[in-house]
Amino acid sequence: MPLKTLADAFHDELRDVLSAEKQLTKALPKMAKAATSEELKAAFENHLEETKTQVERVEQAFEDTGKAARAKTCEAMEGLITEASSMMEEEADPEVMDAILIACAQKVEHYEIATYGTLCTWAKQLGYKNAYKLLKQNMSEEVSADETLSGISESVNAAANA
Amino acid sequence: MPLKTLADAFHDELRDVLSAEKQLTKALPKMAKAATSEELKAAFENHLEETKTQVERVEQAFEDTGKAARAKTCEAMEGLITEASSMMEEEADPEVMDAILIACAQKVEHYEIATYGTLCTWAKQLGYKNAYKLLKQNMSEEVSADETLSGISESVNAAANA
Repeated sequence: MPLKTLADAFHDELRDVLSAEKQLTKALPKMAKAATSEELKAAFENHLEETKTQVERVEQAFEDTGKAARAKTCEAMEGLITEASSMMEEEADPEVMDAILIACAQKVEHYEIATYGTLCTWAKQLGYKNAYKLLKQNMSEEVSADETLSGISESVNAAANA
Repeated sequence: MPLKTLADAFHDELRDVLSAEKQLTKALPKMAKAATSEELKAAFENHLEETKTQVERVEQAFEDTGKAARAKTCEAMEGLITEASSMMEEEADPEVMDAILIACAQKVEHYEIATYGTLCTWAKQLGYKNAYKLLKQNMSEEVSADETLSGISESVNAAANA
């Protein structure tokens, strides 16, 4: 399918983020399990629930495109998760592993913030009002998740450096 | 090498970003070549020069760790570049391709912003003053590069949707 219009690019990018969020629903439980800090564990579990809702919002956002909600493997998220998995296999002290898990998760959040940023800009340009609203909501949640992780990192980093 | 301390994690992360930046110096010329907008082409070429300097700064940042500057394949950046390469192979109208290239580049910038964010926080915690200064400088450039791309995207998206 050639990408002839911005609408085609939007549809393609929406398929990409659907894959990314679905991949994340499988990775977050592993990250929660690998975390030692109760606060961090809870943050990952909370974000898992948010991510499940985000998948639904992305699926709903397809309505404006008039095309079916179908994911297309997001290779970037595959790379981010491969890296996080490699790090989880490292032999590390619990506090250090928590600091590393936060680093990995913030990379994921920033990837999603960039993607939703593009999608929101394109949705606005295309007049996809409903999609814009849904994707903006997802973006706000990613920004909050990133801020929460920054907050938790303060005590985690101090413990890792004790 | 087990990761026993925050200093170990910092060293590991620095090796990761060294690989990421080096990978980017190879990807940016391809992105500049694929771009049609002269402004976008120039932005990629300019960021290529910045990235070469960033590689040098990262290498200098290793000094605080007392260890050699040696890269460790950054799988996340590999994924980001694989995705960008796949997109560049798509059959797309020139204006649409430009919009897509910006989207791919902003994902890369956000990945780097997250990584330098972590590295700066850890450098501060560890008292690595020189590394902190160097990495903060790289982070500022990534933030600026992201803003420049957002600026260019306005006319590019409008053209892609014309």
